[in-house]
Amino acid sequence: MNSFGSKFKVSIFGESHGTAIGITIDGCPAGIPLSKADFMPDIERRKSGAPGTTPRQEADEPNLVSGVFNEHTAGAPITILFENTNIISKDYTSLRATPRPGHADFVLDKKHNGFNDYRGGGHSSGRLTLPLVAAGVVAKKVINNIHIEAKLIEAGGNTDIEAAIATAIQNQDSIGGIIECRVNNLPIGLGEPFFDSVESLISHLIFSIPAVKGIAFGSGFDAVKMTGSQHNDAIMNNQGQTATNYAGGINGGITNGNEVYFTVAMKPTSSTPQTQQTWNHDTQTMADLTIKGRHDLCIALRAPVVVEAVTAIAFANLI
Amino acid sequence: MNSFGSKFKVSIFGESHGTAIGITIDGCPAGIPLSKADFMPDIERRKSGAPGTTPRQEADEPNLVSGVFNEHTAGAPITILFENTNIISKDYTSLRATPRPGHADFVLDKKHNGFNDYRGGGHSSGRLTLPLVAAGVVAKKVINNIHIEAKLIEAGGNTDIEAAIATAIQNQDSIGGIIECRVNNLPIGLGEPFFDSVESLISHLIFSIPAVKGIAFGSGFDAVKMTGSQHNDAIMNNQGQTATNYAGGINGGITNGNEVYFTVAMKPTSSTPQTQQTWNHDTQTMADLTIKGRHDLCIALRAPVVVEAVTAIAFANLI
Amino acid sequence: MNSFGSKFKVSIFGESHGTAIGITIDGCPAGIPLSKADFMPDIERRKSGAPGTTPRQEADEPNLVSGVFNEHTAGAPITILFENTNIISKDYTSLRATPRPGHADFVLDKKHNGFNDYRGGGHSSGRLTLPLVAAGVVAKKVINNIHIEAKLIEAGGNTDIEAAIATAIQNQDSIGGIIECRVNNLPIGLGEPFFDSVESLISHLIFSIPAVKGIAFGSGFDAVKMTGSQHNDAIMNNQGQTATNYAGGINGGITNGNEVYFTVAMKPTSSTPQTQQTWNHDTQTMADLTIKGRHDLCIALRAPVVVEAVTAIAFANLI
Amino acid sequence: MNSFGSKFKVSIFGESHGTAIGITIDGCPAGIPLSKADFMPDIERRKSGAPGTTPRQEADEPNLVSGVFNEHTAGAPITILFENTNIISKDYTSLRATPRPGHADFVLDKKHNGFNDYRGGGHSSGRLTLPLVAAGVVAKKVINNIHIEAKLIEAGGNTDIEAAIATAIQNQDSIGGIIECRVNNLPIGLGEPFFDSVESLISHLIFSIPAVKGIAFGSGFDAVKMTGSQHNDAIMNNQGQTATNYAGGINGGITNGNEVYFTVAMKPTSSTPQTQQTWNHDTQTMADLTIKGRHDLCIALRAPVVVEAVTAIAFANLI
Repeated sequence: MNSFGSKFKVSIFGESHGTAIGITIDGCPAGIPLSKADFMPDIERRKSGAPGTTPRQEADEPNLVSGVFNEHTAGAPITILFENTNIISKDYTSLRATPRPGHADFVLDKKHNGFNDYRGGGHSSGRLTLPLVAAGVVAKKVINNIHIEAKLIEAGGNTDIEAAIATAIQNQDSIGGIIECRVNNLPIGLGEPFFDSVESLISHLIFSIPAVKGIAFGSGFDAVKMTGSQHNDAIMNNQGQTATNYAGGINGGITNGNEVYFTVAMKPTSSTPQTQQTWNHDTQTMADLTIKGRHDLCIALRAPVVVEAVTAIAFANLI
Repeated sequence: MNSFGSKFKVSIFGESHGTAIGITIDGCPAGIPLSKADFMPDIERRKSGAPGTTPRQEADEPNLVSGVFNEHTAGAPITILFENTNIISKDYTSLRATPRPGHADFVLDKKHNGFNDYRGGGHSSGRLTLPLVAAGVVAKKVINNIHIEAKLIEAGGNTDIEAAIATAIQNQDSIGGIIECRVNNLPIGLGEPFFDSVESLISHLIFSIPAVKGIAFGSGFDAVKMTGSQHNDAIMNNQGQTATNYAGGINGGITNGNEVYFTVAMKPTSSTPQTQQTWNHDTQTMADLTIKGRHDLCIALRAPVVVEAVTAIAFANLI
Repeated sequence: MNSFGSKFKVSIFGESHGTAIGITIDGCPAGIPLSKADFMPDIERRKSGAPGTTPRQEADEPNLVSGVFNEHTAGAPITILFENTNIISKDYTSLRATPRPGHADFVLDKKHNGFNDYRGGGHSSGRLTLPLVAAGVVAKKVINNIHIEAKLIEAGGNTDIEAAIATAIQNQDSIGGIIECRVNNLPIGLGEPFFDSVESLISHLIFSIPAVKGIAFGSGFDAVKMTGSQHNDAIMNNQGQTATNYAGGINGGITNGNEVYFTVAMKPTSSTPQTQQTWNHDTQTMADLTIKGRHDLCIALRAPVVVEAVTAIAFANLI
Repeated sequence: MNSFGSKFKVSIFGESHGTAIGITIDGCPAGIPLSKADFMPDIERRKSGAPGTTPRQEADEPNLVSGVFNEHTAGAPITILFENTNIISKDYTSLRATPRPGHADFVLDKKHNGFNDYRGGGHSSGRLTLPLVAAGVVAKKVINNIHIEAKLIEAGGNTDIEAAIATAIQNQDSIGGIIECRVNNLPIGLGEPFFDSVESLISHLIFSIPAVKGIAFGSGFDAVKMTGSQHNDAIMNNQGQTATNYAGGINGGITNGNEVYFTVAMKPTSSTPQTQQTWNHDTQTMADLTIKGRHDLCIALRAPVVVEAVTAIAFANLI
């Protein structure tokens, strides 16, 4: 359900147009310095504002409701709350009848017999990645020596990201992207063969991020064209350093001390300015749909910090 | 750790060269017909024997230790045991000093301070996919109307699988492959937005299968080259049928009633007949290594039934 | 840690003197009518004000942050927040040096290396039973046909509760009590033999309530003086109705359709007006301690609704 | 369901008259010396043979199927199997029609629609305490400095146990008992305020033992007659040593460094030689029932080692 983890457990809650969204972190050790200011850099990275991102502007100020005392973690559950201040719910009232293609509107309505908060995607909104980022800030502090860095390496099939965004704006159609994540300074031995492999935990969390369609570790899908003698990484010393790193730093589900790296495929944002077709529950026919809300042309632009956050959460559970 | 699931929980145990391997299934409803014969078709599909597969021949007879009474599930945990009968442990004694590249030998030794059962990979052996297949047989019965089918669609970069295997045998070097899995007759509404999306559960389990490097749902990595107006699947009727299926049958982590499909990338088998280089703990130098054991040139040949099994386990937990 | 349950999962957070306390409920079905007014009767039952209870007066107004839409549950996590408005933290500053006997001050300080929020017991405060009561309100709606009723049947060794409280006030010393809980209209078959027996789940939760020292189901500790032929409840009909009910409605961990009943022993409130002795961390000697805060002479007076709440949570996980 | 724990997870399986019963332990660290001989003392303590215990004699030889290598734990799941060799199933065939009072026969039949293995109680049999004892042996090794000792302190209301048993034999009627468990050498700080208090975990497991009706920690039910100034344990030094120990070594759910002690009430064995009345499914009337199987007149005689085992499992999850 809406929680993940055993040692560093996160529980997420809230809806896009409710009063607030938030996350509770359970299992964080006491004594780690933590204050509002620590959250701002990653929150800023996620925030909208760049070309191709939504004009919805939220304060996104983290409210540390519990678990923090005298600017240190206190050994109790940490709840971080974000108010939803900039809500224009009237944008969405018509969407009850016409579920947006690519979104969860249709399935949530069926799953919850129409009782779900449909406004802006409700609990399934991309806005919920904000508390994920906040939990990631805490997780990064817990695994402090481990360095995680994610970046967008391709958008709309183009490695020149700025050009890709410009084209998307010109075409008024959304695009996807590939995010690469690299994790360094890992100890040997994290992860389990069954079922909590490093890849299992990371992929479990990565597929909680809206719009993700695929994940590949190390050589990934390219591995299938290689032979064993090419792909195997020769072990060079007692620290486990390998001559190549096709394994992506993981053998049998367990870190081998080399860099862990993986790529994540994100589909184009489902909310595109283009007119689309969908089922109309009122008229019981297919009908045109033009989405008027405020959306991102390339949600992948804002996603690297989310990828980092869930990766940090995964490792905070493995360490 | 070594268990997965909340409603249909599986716990795996055993080592490649121990007395037996097995799995316990907890949460299976009572009253489902189940006998040894039900397991044989899937066990046969996993078994070695085809060109490119290992000559190690096990009886692989499932011993239903508990939870089955009068050839029906009894509402108690189902434990299925497989004896390891055909063990030649002397093959492996030298591998303590020279961990096999691509395998977990090195990391397990470090993780467990040398106490792990290193013979044939121990608990991390691909042989442990046998109990996974057995649990999959039961899971398929639990989700009985849902149809799961996986097949190898590419090996060594070649869609002509027989040709690919022939080349691998000729080159005496292992190859990888891509497995495609398709799931039909699914109800709308399975899965959760956070953190138990359908993709999260499936990928969690898929990455427990040795040699998997990547997974992609629906359009997968191709999505990143598409626009939103291309990628969005138009909803055509009240049953949620879509004009296209780039989403792979999942929106916001939840099944939408269309076919769920995904592809899995498997690396070339790490145990290749070719001589490789690795660290020698005895001599404290890099040294040549030739693996003499009995191994598969294309483990992906035997993996489709394993992919089906863990997919069935995922859905048995979602239903 | 700070969450419980698999089907109806509760996660609790907050400290006695922080900005707010709260609870998140995950797994509640969509479509159940729920509004603030539903919470007030049980919150009032828990509230202070009667003779022998603390003069600390909080508004205790539930803030439904998420998961409720149009006054119905929405199928998303339900977070309920209570602000801490009436905080006099100076009461507690001296207690850092002199941990209160019977409280968790000493152990929390050791466990968290002094980083815990010590004010008023912090996260371990009895105030946290307020969100438990709120979660109980939701749980009672989920298990709606099942009727749970708890009451204080003995205080300070006296079945005349008013007389017991009067004596406690006169003596200015706190007293304990016995709470009896009865659950009716249960279906046959809830619970598991290992490890999720009905008694296991209920006792797990009951011992999360501060001050509980014991629990006994059915005949309880009196059973040990009976013979098997006396104790066994004769089954009278196909509905499982029994001639006696020494079992307390549970056989082998599973409900048998008869009334489930149990008693809970609560110790006298640790915060007594009497002067006590404890270790003084500053002077490194034993020293007198007089607790000046606002406390209950008989916390058991306010506990029946908490017992009901956790019992409802237990059954919401079993149903 | 049939597993418990997060750090030291146990999964139990098997039926009284199936081929075998067993348990899998997940999370046990590698490198702990472990061999068959280690299990025998505790298995002997549980075994039948004393006056008042069942004449069913099993070899009870533990088969270490996995997770043990070179007589040390190997860092993989440990599965321990016990064959059921001495089975006389014909004893039970008539019990299908006439569920035994006090046993789970009736509720299991209803819960599983008649598909449960009813022979000898099936999965709910007291025989399943054997694998619990085996897991306890491993748990005791994991928490090696902590000393746990349980003993029967009262039987049939008599503290002279031998006399109590003699009376039971003479009366040919079963009796219950009280078991006391004491845990020493505990560190300060184990347990959580919500929901994983030390009492919560121990009681959760204790109520998995068949026939348990109550549990009380420290002063237990006697606490309700005491005042706060009497009950509070004065803290005497920086190690947390207290002048009295009414708390039973636990404050706010957390160990305080003093002895943890608790008592467990066990009802008289349900299988008594006396003729009883129960519902007869065949005749649809109440009818006499005389149980002919082999049973214990005082199951509490064999239970102290089971209490120790589950207590050790609880602490192995807290440490």
